Amino acid sequence: MKEKMMDTIIELFGKKGFQGTSIQDIVEANGVTKGTFYYYFKNKEDVLVHIHQSFIDHLLEGQEKIITNVDLSHSDQLYQIVELLIDNIRTNGHSALVFFQEMRHLSEEKTAIILPKRQQFQENIQKVLEEGMKAGEFKKDLRADMLSYAVLGMANWSYFWYEPDGEVDEKSLTDLYMRLIFKGIEEETNDH
Amino acid sequence: MKEKMMDTIIELFGKKGFQGTSIQDIVEANGVTKGTFYYYFKNKEDVLVHIHQSFIDHLLEGQEKIITNVDLSHSDQLYQIVELLIDNIRTNGHSALVFFQEMRHLSEEKTAIILPKRQQFQENIQKVLEEGMKAGEFKKDLRADMLSYAVLGMANWSYFWYEPDGEVDEKSLTDLYMRLIFKGIEEETNDH
Repeated sequence: MKEKMMDTIIELFGKKGFQGTSIQDIVEANGVTKGTFYYYFKNKEDVLVHIHQSFIDHLLEGQEKIITNVDLSHSDQLYQIVELLIDNIRTNGHSALVFFQEMRHLSEEKTAIILPKRQQFQENIQKVLEEGMKAGEFKKDLRADMLSYAVLGMANWSYFWYEPDGEVDEKSLTDLYMRLIFKGIEEETNDH
Repeated sequence: MKEKMMDTIIELFGKKGFQGTSIQDIVEANGVTKGTFYYYFKNKEDVLVHIHQSFIDHLLEGQEKIITNVDLSHSDQLYQIVELLIDNIRTNGHSALVFFQEMRHLSEEKTAIILPKRQQFQENIQKVLEEGMKAGEFKKDLRADMLSYAVLGMANWSYFWYEPDGEVDEKSLTDLYMRLIFKGIEEETNDH
């Protein structure tokens, strides 16, 4: 029941915004009473906290599995992290928009829980880049910190435009992105 | 006066969101009367339309100058478009957040004006990529449409985290990004 309510609420927040959605809207969309809502949630912010937490926890968990897998090269790890983000659009695309757009409506106390997790995700990408540099997989003079944001930006921006059921599937989009990240777009001439 | 009010309003929208900002908040923050507000704007949506329009018009104008400059290679054009976006953070960073986050609060009629302009900006990047492919500057088998979003995502995401007065200035960030886009991060071995 709680999960089903969460889905409806994520859709409402996506459409009308956190501030534009009332508890009345939520109970109507779910065909339940206010009593039912307050049985599961303390208030509207509590729902927002749930959305943020389950969104980032899911990603951190997936990322953890990738970066602790010693059978993978650092290139493979980077590939799979981007794949994780792109694959997540189909299942959690609506949550993502709430995650990206409604952070400011969390209280300071709740932000203090979510923000370090978001940073953790970015820092893990940075670490993969740094270790790949040391291992000789990546160029030695990269700014891993700035480039971790570039990789994140490329992947996260997809949530705003990418249609998983369109012409290009997730695997293909990941391939396109990773080829850009690994090889760049410049035509290789004989000079170098 | 209108410009000064716009600046204050952009800050308010950035902090409290479009829906969370009342006209009362706006007149108080500006130290003016409601009469003054309604002299310049029809309503709150009217302000949002102004923010969206001036944000995208400024970028399209800058982009137009770049892509019509026949003295530039396509690589240079791409470089300068990314530079335009990064440079814009310092001057219009607050507008950008409103631009990215509050689109859904525009009426259908207003969205019909703004959306094609956003698409135009993306399509112009795609065209630079396509022409650079034809000219032999870029690899011939790129998906210019998907990669235009990758470039946009990388640059636009910077609005969420980049501090222009931090350790890395705009020119350096642009250089870092463009090196990634042109050359990729993979260590070039002697095999290829």
